[in-house]
Amino acid sequence: VRVHILGAAAGGGFPQWNCGCPQCVEVRAGSARTEARTQDSIAVTADGEAIVLVNASPDILVQIQRTPALAPRAARHSPIVAIILTNGDLDHVLGLFSLRESYPLHLYATAAVWRGLGERNVLWRTLQRFDGQVTWHPLALDRATSLPGGLSVTPFAVPGKLPVHLERDASPSAEDNIGLELQAGGGRVVYCAAAGAIGPYVERFDGAACVLFDGTFWSSDELVRLGLSTARAESMAHLPIGGAEGSLARLGQVRAGRKIFTHINNTNPILLRDSEARARVEASGWEVAHDGMEIDV
Amino acid sequence: VRVHILGAAAGGGFPQWNCGCPQCVEVRAGSARTEARTQDSIAVTADGEAIVLVNASPDILVQIQRTPALAPRAARHSPIVAIILTNGDLDHVLGLFSLRESYPLHLYATAAVWRGLGERNVLWRTLQRFDGQVTWHPLALDRATSLPGGLSVTPFAVPGKLPVHLERDASPSAEDNIGLELQAGGGRVVYCAAAGAIGPYVERFDGAACVLFDGTFWSSDELVRLGLSTARAESMAHLPIGGAEGSLARLGQVRAGRKIFTHINNTNPILLRDSEARARVEASGWEVAHDGMEIDV
Repeated sequence: VRVHILGAAAGGGFPQWNCGCPQCVEVRAGSARTEARTQDSIAVTADGEAIVLVNASPDILVQIQRTPALAPRAARHSPIVAIILTNGDLDHVLGLFSLRESYPLHLYATAAVWRGLGERNVLWRTLQRFDGQVTWHPLALDRATSLPGGLSVTPFAVPGKLPVHLERDASPSAEDNIGLELQAGGGRVVYCAAAGAIGPYVERFDGAACVLFDGTFWSSDELVRLGLSTARAESMAHLPIGGAEGSLARLGQVRAGRKIFTHINNTNPILLRDSEARARVEASGWEVAHDGMEIDV
Repeated sequence: VRVHILGAAAGGGFPQWNCGCPQCVEVRAGSARTEARTQDSIAVTADGEAIVLVNASPDILVQIQRTPALAPRAARHSPIVAIILTNGDLDHVLGLFSLRESYPLHLYATAAVWRGLGERNVLWRTLQRFDGQVTWHPLALDRATSLPGGLSVTPFAVPGKLPVHLERDASPSAEDNIGLELQAGGGRVVYCAAAGAIGPYVERFDGAACVLFDGTFWSSDELVRLGLSTARAESMAHLPIGGAEGSLARLGQVRAGRKIFTHINNTNPILLRDSEARARVEASGWEVAHDGMEIDV
């Protein structure tokens, strides 16, 4: 199984278009301490041909363009045989509207996420121009689904939240935010890019060849201290990495081949190669994802 | 007045994600005959500080990131003081949803285009998270509107069509697709990236410092001959460049400082520096836009 990290940043990317925080200034200046990242998405393949895309980020076109494995091989073609959505957040679904050029898409999502896509959304019609343009393959929690190309996916519930634009009229459900076990042969990859809390689901991490986990924030009050927001990490359903109750402390005992933080917010100090936060992450056996990273398991 | 060409491609960009036509293959291979282009958008400034963005392409984040004039100058800031929309096509509006990080946006659009944005579109709520997140400034045909930073804009009707996703229930209007005169001091720039036909509006082109015109297709049957579609250029409301009735023949007499084709489809042979089509365009005094081009008038 090969995993391409297409984008390793949280919503907004790094740098963020309207952000002049010290780290965004640094990456814009071309500093050697860090590098730009696009919004969270991975591409996974078992056979080296068929690509399973996990999430469709707003940066999808540039992500496809710079990844040779995602290039078409005929006049109208894409190796992307499946698109799995792990929640309905815009940074995970907006890219679907950039895949509107008359090509059949196969979406794998829970019923909750699927309903959120098309209801009261006139833009969705751009993906309904011919029969079969979008085919929905329902994902059920804790049940394995076979994907074209030899992978299977098992989704599991992870504490999360509704997308901001659906908070007003949808009821929260365990299906709103999922993690994934992606498996072929002996290789098992766990992807969990948004997690509001630790829970029994982390038992799945032990023995995985690779765990990709929510690295959005280092600390709960990261945005508050920078004066960028009044929101704490947990209120956005992202458990911070640092602190006594953070993911680094809570997941310290996980035994997995590789453990990688991804979906990283522009303000998170782990983005700087020489930060104390980065040193602590690496000392605990964790890595920090970057665009273009390839993981073979 | 300075014009930054942020993106010079038509919807889908060049290369297009699922297209294996000879030109897309060539640009992916890194050929010296051509170069990649993102989707149509320009940034215009009169004072070198305040930026007026014309259209919000799906590629807006990468366009902002690689254009130093568009970088923020404070912790939360953007030099983009106005966003003008020339129609409601997804390749001109989808980028708005990538500007959702708590920042006030000032949209300048006709009533027809404005209505198409928010009605029956649950995603729009992501731009309604606080009072004043989006302010609509109505554009009226043939009437000048002052913009922050010293520019004024005069929109004019150009034959076009409704966005695909609104065809079903909106009635066509002269306000669906507009061209722009952008002016400050003596400098007048005309932008007309989508034009289904020549009309009296082209009288505005004479005497302009710069004319940017619809360069989507070279020939009416370009997509048909490549086997990519059954649609002709005119049915998509794009007058082709070539042919006896094409824009190059019809606009040959225009007297303007610079005349530039933009909004170029991936199949258009003018994208190849050594093509016969490119030679004919240049022999007629026209240029071919590319990403990163800067025009000072």
